[in-house]
Amino acid sequence: MCKSYVLIFIANCSLFLSFAQDQKRARDYGIEIGVLQPGALNAITDVSGVQVGHTTLIEGEHIRTGVTAILAHDGNIFQEKVPAAIYIGNGFGKLAGYSQVKELGNIETPIVLTNTLNVATAIDALVGYSLALPGNENVRSVNAVVGETNDGYLNDIRGRHVDEKAVLDAILNANNGEVKEGNVGAGTGTICFGYKGGIGTASRVLSKKAGGYTLGVLVQSNFGGVLEINGAQVGKQLGRYSDSFKYEADGSCMMVVMTDAPLDSRNLERLAKRAMLGLAKTGGIASNGSGDYVIAVSTAESCRIPYRAEGNTKTHTTLRNEAMTPLFLATIEATEEAILNSLFTAETMTGRNGQTIEALPKKQVLQMLKKEIENPE
Amino acid sequence: MCKSYVLIFIANCSLFLSFAQDQKRARDYGIEIGVLQPGALNAITDVSGVQVGHTTLIEGEHIRTGVTAILAHDGNIFQEKVPAAIYIGNGFGKLAGYSQVKELGNIETPIVLTNTLNVATAIDALVGYSLALPGNENVRSVNAVVGETNDGYLNDIRGRHVDEKAVLDAILNANNGEVKEGNVGAGTGTICFGYKGGIGTASRVLSKKAGGYTLGVLVQSNFGGVLEINGAQVGKQLGRYSDSFKYEADGSCMMVVMTDAPLDSRNLERLAKRAMLGLAKTGGIASNGSGDYVIAVSTAESCRIPYRAEGNTKTHTTLRNEAMTPLFLATIEATEEAILNSLFTAETMTGRNGQTIEALPKKQVLQMLKKEIENPE
Amino acid sequence: MCKSYVLIFIANCSLFLSFAQDQKRARDYGIEIGVLQPGALNAITDVSGVQVGHTTLIEGEHIRTGVTAILAHDGNIFQEKVPAAIYIGNGFGKLAGYSQVKELGNIETPIVLTNTLNVATAIDALVGYSLALPGNENVRSVNAVVGETNDGYLNDIRGRHVDEKAVLDAILNANNGEVKEGNVGAGTGTICFGYKGGIGTASRVLSKKAGGYTLGVLVQSNFGGVLEINGAQVGKQLGRYSDSFKYEADGSCMMVVMTDAPLDSRNLERLAKRAMLGLAKTGGIASNGSGDYVIAVSTAESCRIPYRAEGNTKTHTTLRNEAMTPLFLATIEATEEAILNSLFTAETMTGRNGQTIEALPKKQVLQMLKKEIENPE
Amino acid sequence: MCKSYVLIFIANCSLFLSFAQDQKRARDYGIEIGVLQPGALNAITDVSGVQVGHTTLIEGEHIRTGVTAILAHDGNIFQEKVPAAIYIGNGFGKLAGYSQVKELGNIETPIVLTNTLNVATAIDALVGYSLALPGNENVRSVNAVVGETNDGYLNDIRGRHVDEKAVLDAILNANNGEVKEGNVGAGTGTICFGYKGGIGTASRVLSKKAGGYTLGVLVQSNFGGVLEINGAQVGKQLGRYSDSFKYEADGSCMMVVMTDAPLDSRNLERLAKRAMLGLAKTGGIASNGSGDYVIAVSTAESCRIPYRAEGNTKTHTTLRNEAMTPLFLATIEATEEAILNSLFTAETMTGRNGQTIEALPKKQVLQMLKKEIENPE
Repeated sequence: MCKSYVLIFIANCSLFLSFAQDQKRARDYGIEIGVLQPGALNAITDVSGVQVGHTTLIEGEHIRTGVTAILAHDGNIFQEKVPAAIYIGNGFGKLAGYSQVKELGNIETPIVLTNTLNVATAIDALVGYSLALPGNENVRSVNAVVGETNDGYLNDIRGRHVDEKAVLDAILNANNGEVKEGNVGAGTGTICFGYKGGIGTASRVLSKKAGGYTLGVLVQSNFGGVLEINGAQVGKQLGRYSDSFKYEADGSCMMVVMTDAPLDSRNLERLAKRAMLGLAKTGGIASNGSGDYVIAVSTAESCRIPYRAEGNTKTHTTLRNEAMTPLFLATIEATEEAILNSLFTAETMTGRNGQTIEALPKKQVLQMLKKEIENPE
Repeated sequence: MCKSYVLIFIANCSLFLSFAQDQKRARDYGIEIGVLQPGALNAITDVSGVQVGHTTLIEGEHIRTGVTAILAHDGNIFQEKVPAAIYIGNGFGKLAGYSQVKELGNIETPIVLTNTLNVATAIDALVGYSLALPGNENVRSVNAVVGETNDGYLNDIRGRHVDEKAVLDAILNANNGEVKEGNVGAGTGTICFGYKGGIGTASRVLSKKAGGYTLGVLVQSNFGGVLEINGAQVGKQLGRYSDSFKYEADGSCMMVVMTDAPLDSRNLERLAKRAMLGLAKTGGIASNGSGDYVIAVSTAESCRIPYRAEGNTKTHTTLRNEAMTPLFLATIEATEEAILNSLFTAETMTGRNGQTIEALPKKQVLQMLKKEIENPE
Repeated sequence: MCKSYVLIFIANCSLFLSFAQDQKRARDYGIEIGVLQPGALNAITDVSGVQVGHTTLIEGEHIRTGVTAILAHDGNIFQEKVPAAIYIGNGFGKLAGYSQVKELGNIETPIVLTNTLNVATAIDALVGYSLALPGNENVRSVNAVVGETNDGYLNDIRGRHVDEKAVLDAILNANNGEVKEGNVGAGTGTICFGYKGGIGTASRVLSKKAGGYTLGVLVQSNFGGVLEINGAQVGKQLGRYSDSFKYEADGSCMMVVMTDAPLDSRNLERLAKRAMLGLAKTGGIASNGSGDYVIAVSTAESCRIPYRAEGNTKTHTTLRNEAMTPLFLATIEATEEAILNSLFTAETMTGRNGQTIEALPKKQVLQMLKKEIENPE
Repeated sequence: MCKSYVLIFIANCSLFLSFAQDQKRARDYGIEIGVLQPGALNAITDVSGVQVGHTTLIEGEHIRTGVTAILAHDGNIFQEKVPAAIYIGNGFGKLAGYSQVKELGNIETPIVLTNTLNVATAIDALVGYSLALPGNENVRSVNAVVGETNDGYLNDIRGRHVDEKAVLDAILNANNGEVKEGNVGAGTGTICFGYKGGIGTASRVLSKKAGGYTLGVLVQSNFGGVLEINGAQVGKQLGRYSDSFKYEADGSCMMVVMTDAPLDSRNLERLAKRAMLGLAKTGGIASNGSGDYVIAVSTAESCRIPYRAEGNTKTHTTLRNEAMTPLFLATIEATEEAILNSLFTAETMTGRNGQTIEALPKKQVLQMLKKEIENPE
């Protein structure tokens, strides 16, 4: 089969390249997740208007942390809010902003990801940023949306080394191009399935018939379970899991889903729930200590919610329930691939107290996968 | 590798047997899901006291439906309620009893599964059954828990052919032995990933260190997506999915989780959420039209809730949050395997209007799996 | 003050009339709840298109029950669904249809209220009714919305005396005129604050500036607490409450809110929550055994959701969050007044085992209220 | 009636005293809310072990804000967590800590209330406080619970004048004695029904038969609606409300409920919901822009949750569902009275831009109430 040959070719080629250069993504190794097509960048920035920025803090022996900011559009988000929902996969986390998003169905700030103990810093920076925007001179209430995972193994998290400047830099550096993955931004110090995790992203574009919408996912991967890669039982075969799972599997995963499909908050919440299904396919189990949250946003201009408006009503066009299923599938696929990208791009890191977390053993993993790719039927 | 050889042996052996006799389960074909061990029967009835009964209605050309009852213990469940939770994966369904379980944290009837349009019949039967039990002479309020999926493609569902006797028979025939799977009971007419689905079950036993608890899952599989079997991309390779997924992927999955671990309703709800992760690993996407519900119950005797009791308080021993993770993994694995069992045991069926749904093409599927099993590293 | 004099006049006049004729409502006794104006009928049927029908079953010594149906419009509701939400104030109840309304944001059948043990009968009747409607010939899935309260003190509830005909009669008799209150339909045998409760209704019309919308509430009152009437501490002064409240205060309240304001399901859920605030103002406490549910529906034609439609999207005009507050107040006021109406119109009833529940002692209550009305400042 | 005479006497007496001295509470004016008895202090500190501390910031013309801390016990709350739940009455607010409380069922820090834009400051202070406690040297994850209301009319909220020291001072000054009310702590700059609001508290003690438990409520009142005081229609009679309620009614109410009754998180969530019923009885309507949150905690020692423990299980004694109703009533009454106390104790304040908010016109209000008290039957 032609397709298979191509795959093998890419796989071999990638295998070769992977020793010459780092930062290859899962797809560069021949791993094609799912049945839908990715966008041009295979990143959340494929969704028109979406911007991502990172601040990476690697200082001395003990600081391995950072900030990642995701902006739904390049305008004043407080004045032009976006429909949104947050789904709590497992709520052992300190995400800020949940209840207002749930109640009002929208988000009014950039979304910021950082480490667990610097959530307050990020809130404060977002509040200051929002108050200072031209047009917001009379604003006295800001609902900052901040997610986090705990990088306390590699990072001196108790030192709370993220400052407001680091947060603002991530926002100000945000752009709509390629997204750096792995040990960057909020993923600088995270761990996933016992390997180095980090930031990952991926996207899907629906067929014309299904609406032609683009959907992108960005993750901050920091969780455990029994790793699977495109179905290959990596964790099981490498024996890399614990039967008791008392603390070892703990961690968290922040997932941000953006789409240009015009969705209201109810259908965005349904979309958000599907990201957990993507996480499941990588072997994630949403352990007791995991803070697994999904933030879903529609960037469709027609769905924007002005802060102040004439009249009591608003006319908008949204997707019918019956048209949601392809977006559900896109969310699952893009989340799975974004997590894998975070693993494939992250590199071995040594941090706090000289502790080291190895990168995914790509050669070994690819051997497992190569068998499957070579013999597809 | 020794383990792999054994697997190949079983796989080949099963392949052989599969032509000699039907009703082989996934594990009989060499498919070992996950890293935890199943119980003696690899069924929900491995959980002490749990009983399952079926009524299968196959009559004439058009009736392909039935009832499955799951009892948490063999006493008067109304008088000795069990801690419980229901999680709504996707709520396009008619499950009865949700709000009281959510509010009070317990279940007071057998759990009955049937087809979508016979939920009322099952409620009525459960109410009558409960009112008539010795000791319940003064009971004037019963919260019947009934789940359903829509078997309307193979079954004349508009005819509502399940009667109260069929429901009561399923309850009365319930026993704690092997559980018949496939085209039985509430799974008689269901469809899964475009193949014949049905009833499936599986179980896991935790290690001593993790508490030694048993957890079992029973599913009524009737949903779509892109089928994966233990990681093999079956749906993708067979091209058996639709890009637009407008209606084709629709369907539902009822999942019942029982465990002898002593859990309160909060942790049971957390457990229930993990069943959706197991569904995800089979390729389920919880499409728009899917009614995906998980009912989770603790059968631990110390957690029973008496209908009437002296005093205002009750003393009970429950698992700490920190001990939940192994049960989460057990739920994921047992759900995945239960769904696969429903597919492997279900047989081709012709029903309403002469429409036929084929059984999973096991030979073809096993070829795909065999490749992976033969080449595990 | 002019307004006060008018009130006194009405109060006296009503007092007089109350001995000449029954079925006077709270406002007929001079009790004006809140600050907003009621609609022409001061009933849920003030909302254009809304229809209400009752079947009252009073037979022999023991049967005191019935059915009340509320239709959001006079078309085929399955084909033209209405945006809706259900809020669970306290979930000790058997309401049917919750999860699908939550997931999809709409209702597709008439809403039926009846007694606790006849919910199944009502579901079955609604399913049959829906399947039989012209245009629904291929429908194989119906989400029936049925609420209930427990009339088992006055009614032989274990006998389950409501049959499908009784349910269908309520639907078929539904009309948009005055709504009979008190001991009718689903309120035939209910008890409220220890007095005879039943069906009650009220409405509010917003000012032009607030949108000019009409909102109506219908309740089936069957709950306890410490009765207050327009602020008068009736229960406290009459000593009609129990300190321990172990079982005595139990009961339930079904509340149905309809409005022609164009609302999506998220804002309808917010609206529904406010009905509990209205219940609170009558002294309701949502006791442990109470099944307090609020079903909220927007009847706005522009918000209807067609069963099948061309295209993936729908354009609709809905209220902005900022315009919700007047509707919240309207819901609170109309719910409070609807509950009071159920008490003022219900009459003493003797039922099962010769047990009698007295009507609200109106003369005594009006004495308490008269004092307050005479001395308003 | 003797009781009435006593009431009149107290009322007159209070009326007199109210001109001689401020800080009289509702009950000092003869206003007895509900039918249950208050505790010795009629404050949240009646619950054994509960401590409250305030930091009040009144500086220059523009700073009118502060911090209030509520501690569930005087030990290391991180090491000995307390069962808890948070109910979102209306989620237009920035409360921190929700999702982890929901997931794990407990609180691990003092509860801090402050203004909307200083939530981050309070989180940071709580994190620092928790990390620094003896025994917490290895803690790397802290879920700070912080509530807020918006004091931006009287306070220069954009200046974010609360610093970490102010937060820590409130925690360190916390004690279990009388609780200062009105313009103190987080209530320094708040507004309620258009009058000066602030901090208020009240408590109830159940009868022996109902368990003898104590329950206390503390509120930060900053919301609108149509004021009622013990049933007197104050807002309506004074015409102090707006028909359109577009922005005027906005505001928020933070409610903290503590009880020594042994409750699990599920029943604490049910308890929390009832605080909204108490708010309703003061005329609150939970307007669109309101952030109405209820934090409920059980202080029962037997229910404490150790951070680290031997073994997987924990034995605890909790109230049965059937014993909850008296606590529901206690919550409603104590919340209503706490809100009234905040109004009666708050004094006229001038703040930002010379804007003034008047205190409740007690003389006028008492005239209305006096009529009712003088003529109780």
